[in-house]
Amino acid sequence: MKEQGRSYRNMSGKCAFFQCFDSNRKDRGVNWMEKITGVTKDSAGAAAALKAMEEGAHVKVKGAVHSVRRMGEITFLILRRRDGLLQLVCEEGKTKEGYREVREGDTLKAEGTIRKEERSPGGLEIVTEEVTKLSESKKAFPLPVSRKKLNTSLEAKLSVRPLSLRNLRERAKFKIQEGICRAFREYLFQNGFTEIHTPKIGAKGAEGGANLFRLDYFHKKAVLEQSPQLYKQMMVGVFDRVFETGPVFRAEKHNTKRHLNEYTSLDLEMGYIDDFTDVMEVETGFLQYMTRLLEQEYRPWLDLLGARLPKTDEIPSVRFDEAKQLVAEVYQRPMRAPYDLEPEEEELIGRYFKETYGADFVFVTHYPSRKRPFYAMDDPADPKVTLSFDLLFRGLEVTTGGQRIHDYDKLTAKIGEKKMTTEGLEDYLSAFLYGMPPHGGLGIGLERLTMQLLGEENIRETCLFPRDLKRLEP
Amino acid sequence: MKEQGRSYRNMSGKCAFFQCFDSNRKDRGVNWMEKITGVTKDSAGAAAALKAMEEGAHVKVKGAVHSVRRMGEITFLILRRRDGLLQLVCEEGKTKEGYREVREGDTLKAEGTIRKEERSPGGLEIVTEEVTKLSESKKAFPLPVSRKKLNTSLEAKLSVRPLSLRNLRERAKFKIQEGICRAFREYLFQNGFTEIHTPKIGAKGAEGGANLFRLDYFHKKAVLEQSPQLYKQMMVGVFDRVFETGPVFRAEKHNTKRHLNEYTSLDLEMGYIDDFTDVMEVETGFLQYMTRLLEQEYRPWLDLLGARLPKTDEIPSVRFDEAKQLVAEVYQRPMRAPYDLEPEEEELIGRYFKETYGADFVFVTHYPSRKRPFYAMDDPADPKVTLSFDLLFRGLEVTTGGQRIHDYDKLTAKIGEKKMTTEGLEDYLSAFLYGMPPHGGLGIGLERLTMQLLGEENIRETCLFPRDLKRLEP
Repeated sequence: MKEQGRSYRNMSGKCAFFQCFDSNRKDRGVNWMEKITGVTKDSAGAAAALKAMEEGAHVKVKGAVHSVRRMGEITFLILRRRDGLLQLVCEEGKTKEGYREVREGDTLKAEGTIRKEERSPGGLEIVTEEVTKLSESKKAFPLPVSRKKLNTSLEAKLSVRPLSLRNLRERAKFKIQEGICRAFREYLFQNGFTEIHTPKIGAKGAEGGANLFRLDYFHKKAVLEQSPQLYKQMMVGVFDRVFETGPVFRAEKHNTKRHLNEYTSLDLEMGYIDDFTDVMEVETGFLQYMTRLLEQEYRPWLDLLGARLPKTDEIPSVRFDEAKQLVAEVYQRPMRAPYDLEPEEEELIGRYFKETYGADFVFVTHYPSRKRPFYAMDDPADPKVTLSFDLLFRGLEVTTGGQRIHDYDKLTAKIGEKKMTTEGLEDYLSAFLYGMPPHGGLGIGLERLTMQLLGEENIRETCLFPRDLKRLEP
Repeated sequence: MKEQGRSYRNMSGKCAFFQCFDSNRKDRGVNWMEKITGVTKDSAGAAAALKAMEEGAHVKVKGAVHSVRRMGEITFLILRRRDGLLQLVCEEGKTKEGYREVREGDTLKAEGTIRKEERSPGGLEIVTEEVTKLSESKKAFPLPVSRKKLNTSLEAKLSVRPLSLRNLRERAKFKIQEGICRAFREYLFQNGFTEIHTPKIGAKGAEGGANLFRLDYFHKKAVLEQSPQLYKQMMVGVFDRVFETGPVFRAEKHNTKRHLNEYTSLDLEMGYIDDFTDVMEVETGFLQYMTRLLEQEYRPWLDLLGARLPKTDEIPSVRFDEAKQLVAEVYQRPMRAPYDLEPEEEELIGRYFKETYGADFVFVTHYPSRKRPFYAMDDPADPKVTLSFDLLFRGLEVTTGGQRIHDYDKLTAKIGEKKMTTEGLEDYLSAFLYGMPPHGGLGIGLERLTMQLLGEENIRETCLFPRDLKRLEP
């Protein structure tokens, strides 16, 4: 047996090399082979693991230098790690010299012993023996990342996005966003939904030709999908209940605090509903699940942000026409746009239901047909309105949903009434031609939901890399 | 107190209306309001719920007519539902007349009693009293959806995608795909990763200018991202460990069985690694988690497809140069492309390790630097190769990954060596300027992984709506 070949990994020693070349065998073996066994390690030393250790335990940890405080003979290096801050205590004569050259942004590994210390982040600190740089920051930070709040403009934060996100409050927003998205999927899996992935490049948009980004697709005209609407409906015919969490693209020339040109849409569509309130119940169930998940697993991030979880035990539902009338009368505000809610009206509806019923959320139902897309089902009792809803959260629309037309003849008739053409809709319509159950669904803007949950003033605060009229980078 | 207003929901009666107009109050109340309480119902009658019921229990169920078998006085209606098939038994004189007009594709609700019947799907059938159509199919099916296998060409299946996916085997592939994607996220959440959403429209592609779809973004030149690579690296500086599951876009003019122009990429990136095998360990851990999840929760779908779960307990890892040499010698195949593996070489490596070690997966490491992108870290022991890997699954590459350069100076030097410009990379580079930990990551093609897991011959079989040189619809 020949000795095994070269190793690029003999330092770590975490898994055995084995000899797989047998010179007696007829077939040629490889000289060098290693087995990967799926044993993951966390060489940074997770906070939970450190917390479980005894005072005086010897540990190795890693992290990025969030801030440095030098106090005479003692230097505190505060490390930023994925699970929070960790304090290293370095002392002249006791800690090896290397710690003196450390600056903000460097990444380190350190060795030392645990000391329980209530005032430190996570209730402990590391009495440090030695610090070794893993990498260096080359430049002083242009903004004070380690401050509790970055008291700079949104513009300034976005202009140095990879850096400003290192601020603990900035990154916490996206932990909450993760929790929202996770709750959506987990809740729907538990309720028999299938996750789907639908194409973002298509030949035609779901809801008509305006506001579409256009591109050349191998010399064919293509668009970026503004919604997975038509695809998720087709898939109701296959899986009964489906959802998707993915990007959607809107070439709207808005420049407001609540619009993005690319955002993450949480979409669901469900078959065999009795009526569109079934969809509202599922959304309410999701929001309840979400608040529980955030409470249970994201409490530190919520606290850091001072975020208040909304009331989700019951959500009032009112009709569009009544809601509109209501705020006109209560707040003496003239109605202007009869077929839609103006942003100020949404705010006032939110305010009214908060003040009167303590509600953070309000469903507004029965939107006028002329403002809803062709696939929306009209109310048989009054075809001027649809069996649809929006969900307002603290005065801002975060969801649009409703029941869809499921009968082929009614659907094609409606397309005619809307002066649209069925051209390009053949595949979509074929799903109805071969039978579709009564169904409905909704789309939730992830960034908007996060924004309202956290009480942010601008949707760009809750998007890692916003795309708007001006911003295409980073 | 005034009586409550109109109700569009009095049939369902599932939640109480309540009066919220108080004529004594100064502010005006709404006439009609309902509370949505998040109580979801499954009016279709889930298979698990039916199974738990006693023989003779009276039930209401819903579903789509998958097939109809008329046998004299008895008619069997087989319903397709999200959780499998359900047999309705209708009998002349015992079941109300309506069942006679039912045809394939109609959706129904039915009432009847449960009869345990081992030979029926799910071990039971419904002795049906009454059948009511919820919607109608307008046309006879152009392909035999209810057959066990659709023995038609891929082309034929794709041309009627919303319909062909209703075949049980066709849709089962996407249940397995769901399980893979779910396992990826669950495993990474358990290992401290943060989920991120990065923009798909950008000013510049991650890995150079070729193969990019271009679009006009409010009169600025933009591209569709071919990978979240640069974004996920920037986010390692923020969250240490991140992942994303989302679409990527490649304008490659390939027309092969293993390429799509839009696919779902499972991406991860992790900081504080000791070396690139840490990334391989995480991938192996994910694959182990995936096989367990599929075994536990997706067994019926695996059985339907006759799919064989791969061996994931340990995955052999070999060097690129050795693997290449190996198959050249063992299979007497001349080497042509020295810096890359040809598809046939990947197949032969897969075959060799299957035959010799029973391995379904093989890591191939140390790919030549000239074929890897600028951010790949060269091996200090041999800068002609990188600290990188591909994962082959049954002879096809399903993952590319490796360690990345984390030092700003080395990164900019490498960009120079590759004759690239830093223009457009300023934001990316700023993350390194202010300190980045040693890190690495990988990207997995979801459709390819599904394809290999299920033994499909063409990647279009495992994409709901494939996008290729010819296909932009449906």
